[in-house]
Amino acid sequence: MTMLLFQIGLAILTILLLKDTCGASVTPDPVFQYIDANQEKFVQRLKEWVVIKSDSSDPSLRNEVHKMMEITAELIKTLGGTAELVDIGLQQLPSGETLKLPSVVLGQIGQDPDKPTLCIYGHTDVQPARKEDGWDTDPYTLTEINGNLYGRGASDDKGQILPWINAAEALQSQELPVNFKFLIEGMEEVGSDGLAELIMKRNQTFFSDVDYIVLADTAWISEKPALTYGARGNCYFLVEVECANRDLHSGSYGGVIHEAMTDLIALLDSLTNSSGHILIPGINEAVAALTDEETKLYSGISFDHEEFRNKIGAQELRQKNKEDVLLQRWRYPSLTIHGIEGAFSGAGTKTVIPAKVIGKFSIRQVPDMDPLQVEKQVIEYLDKKFAELKSPNKMKTTMVIGAKPWLTDPNNKAFHAGRKASKRAFGVEPDLIRVGGTIPIATTLEDVTGKNLIMMPLGGPYDAAHGQNEKISRYNYIEGTKFAAAYAQEFAKL
Amino acid sequence: MTMLLFQIGLAILTILLLKDTCGASVTPDPVFQYIDANQEKFVQRLKEWVVIKSDSSDPSLRNEVHKMMEITAELIKTLGGTAELVDIGLQQLPSGETLKLPSVVLGQIGQDPDKPTLCIYGHTDVQPARKEDGWDTDPYTLTEINGNLYGRGASDDKGQILPWINAAEALQSQELPVNFKFLIEGMEEVGSDGLAELIMKRNQTFFSDVDYIVLADTAWISEKPALTYGARGNCYFLVEVECANRDLHSGSYGGVIHEAMTDLIALLDSLTNSSGHILIPGINEAVAALTDEETKLYSGISFDHEEFRNKIGAQELRQKNKEDVLLQRWRYPSLTIHGIEGAFSGAGTKTVIPAKVIGKFSIRQVPDMDPLQVEKQVIEYLDKKFAELKSPNKMKTTMVIGAKPWLTDPNNKAFHAGRKASKRAFGVEPDLIRVGGTIPIATTLEDVTGKNLIMMPLGGPYDAAHGQNEKISRYNYIEGTKFAAAYAQEFAKL
Repeated sequence: MTMLLFQIGLAILTILLLKDTCGASVTPDPVFQYIDANQEKFVQRLKEWVVIKSDSSDPSLRNEVHKMMEITAELIKTLGGTAELVDIGLQQLPSGETLKLPSVVLGQIGQDPDKPTLCIYGHTDVQPARKEDGWDTDPYTLTEINGNLYGRGASDDKGQILPWINAAEALQSQELPVNFKFLIEGMEEVGSDGLAELIMKRNQTFFSDVDYIVLADTAWISEKPALTYGARGNCYFLVEVECANRDLHSGSYGGVIHEAMTDLIALLDSLTNSSGHILIPGINEAVAALTDEETKLYSGISFDHEEFRNKIGAQELRQKNKEDVLLQRWRYPSLTIHGIEGAFSGAGTKTVIPAKVIGKFSIRQVPDMDPLQVEKQVIEYLDKKFAELKSPNKMKTTMVIGAKPWLTDPNNKAFHAGRKASKRAFGVEPDLIRVGGTIPIATTLEDVTGKNLIMMPLGGPYDAAHGQNEKISRYNYIEGTKFAAAYAQEFAKL
Repeated sequence: MTMLLFQIGLAILTILLLKDTCGASVTPDPVFQYIDANQEKFVQRLKEWVVIKSDSSDPSLRNEVHKMMEITAELIKTLGGTAELVDIGLQQLPSGETLKLPSVVLGQIGQDPDKPTLCIYGHTDVQPARKEDGWDTDPYTLTEINGNLYGRGASDDKGQILPWINAAEALQSQELPVNFKFLIEGMEEVGSDGLAELIMKRNQTFFSDVDYIVLADTAWISEKPALTYGARGNCYFLVEVECANRDLHSGSYGGVIHEAMTDLIALLDSLTNSSGHILIPGINEAVAALTDEETKLYSGISFDHEEFRNKIGAQELRQKNKEDVLLQRWRYPSLTIHGIEGAFSGAGTKTVIPAKVIGKFSIRQVPDMDPLQVEKQVIEYLDKKFAELKSPNKMKTTMVIGAKPWLTDPNNKAFHAGRKASKRAFGVEPDLIRVGGTIPIATTLEDVTGKNLIMMPLGGPYDAAHGQNEKISRYNYIEGTKFAAAYAQEFAKL
């Protein structure tokens, strides 16, 4: 008995010693050490970025976006880099008014012609957020709860672009393996107005020595890191119906007016069947056929569709297995009705007949859909449906965003460097994934510059980008900084 | 030539003298003179009332409604009357929370048992209003432009209850012909919560010596004054659909979720056909048949349906002649979809899948519809339609307002007094009309107290109650004060 206890004790001691030895056998990475030592500073930087209400969709908050771009440039300069705030002109609002577009930051840290150059793309504008939408904390005050950093833009995309800037700082403490260029915009959430023109203009200068483009956006599909090789596009439509020159009392006018809401609801109801299948002719027909090779890619991905369903509190998904859920999210189109502008949307019981209402919906794009075709198909379809209503009202459909899908080869060298960096920073092979969301600029960057692009998401799978209580975990934010640093080092080795 | 000029001059002089003589032949009414002399003070009173955001539909503004009731009571006391602020308990919100109801003002000016007693009913709560809804001026700052006083509540109903209080003041400067009682509430716009119970409680006390009830609300149908003998009721419904526990990114989740908006839009689209005809079984069947006698009432009314259409900027009305337009507005039901709570409603292009959306619609009620029956019919219909969608989402329909229609005999003595007062104050016979809007308390007041009621609107035909740029004209407000004073005198003579 004593002997047995002794042997067990010895075994435990051996395991502990071995564990220690194993830990000591890897020389601590000084760049990673720098990141750990500076993590409070890095979180503070995110806090200072989140506080700025850089909602690019709301014209009244445009000054906040301008401020955000200035602060972004300032940070790069503080780290010894250069940063230009490039004026990209005016935005045309649907009303016909114009508004100054946020300047684009073209930054650079490191200018050694003997080193490869990575261009990091990201955005510092955000989606709308109001406390009363159902946030537990103020959306513009970064708040840490149980290891998560809550705030609008924490994951999409302020908290994904900062790790690359922080990584550049950490690498500088040793040696920069690459030159970093930064392309950071403030209109991503509304379709990257003016950015394509800028890329074209600077194609022969800023982009000429870029070796690869890293897109610092999107999210993991599981708790494992991921590298992304595809994204859906998006066509966003406004359907405006007008029945009167001002809102009317539903008692005094109810029954004698062809109400705008009646028309709009009928039009929105004609877009899909009851389970969400798109009814606009031509949309589903344009989708590229699924190949056997492609099908195989899906089975190996760490994704639990039941957990996914549970997390968001849905009773049931439209698809019944992991593969079908992923296929729908990544390589089939979908149509979402986002809401209605101009109708009563507050709490309570306003008895109004809204005079002018704007229905908002969007259709996610996949290969081989073409936004220009989709625009035509949607407008023709709604014009036809509206004609069937025999309404005397005014109706107009406008496509305000038309972003193509993006797809690349997950077997090229950038993905190899990404796999190595993932193993160093997180200790695991990454998932190779696509995203359902839209990065309008990915196709533009590839098309114009002729360079290849990789997406390296740092956001977690349930960060609630665009929703209430958006967050990034401190783990993703800090270890993601190490991932970015390791990626630069691995890329330089190739 | 000289002779001709002399004759023309003489003719003009004669006209001027005659005009002066005619004016002098009527002894100026000292009460009317008092009203003219004090009109700036009366307008200032309205300004002080409009500034208070007494929107009863918004729980966050409840304190403003409380303040409004206190100021109302204060004014009556300032004029030498008595005023009690009666606590009517708590409001049950759809969420389950409770909120203190605004106190009801029971006021009195004049207590002579030898004089008849008129009870004036009105409300000082208002509909929601925000500058960004499209107001040209701040909705809570009474602003005079071209003889019109703009502001939320200017016509509905602050600017219609104040003339009665001001009339009592003016009459007091000579002699009160009647005792005035005032029943003023702060929950009219959301269904007069708690008021019926109060009327029942005070039926044997406050209401025991009331001879007639005057309802100071609604509006004229033309530039001529009007007396109102009917009003539609209203049943207001909330349809809530929930698909997730939080809003979702339409890129990451689009296509795999049964979206709540898809269900809600389908449900709202099932309520009427494309021209607004109600499809819920039982609704149209309950409408009382139109009699020949009733039909005749409509032809004499001063109402230009083309002008009406033009003013509101509608391309076309659902009915093609004056009588049909009035019949639809006054004695047929109508269904209006007011809007959606919880969906994206701002400017711009948020790409969100709303998790929980609440559709809001209401059905105007006419004899012989019964709100309890309508509630049953609507809920059954939507439950059936929702079942047809085969959606896994949660759905719930709630009726939050259920107000009966009201109808009285336009040939009784109160209407005779009204006609005489109209001739004295405005110089014309009034229109005998009904209203499409809802005065939930009219039926309750008659049913509980057993007294008869007359509606004496002071609002103009295009005051935009419930809409943007609500107003009352200075003419209606000041001459309406004379109308109120004259009515009290004429009523006392009967």
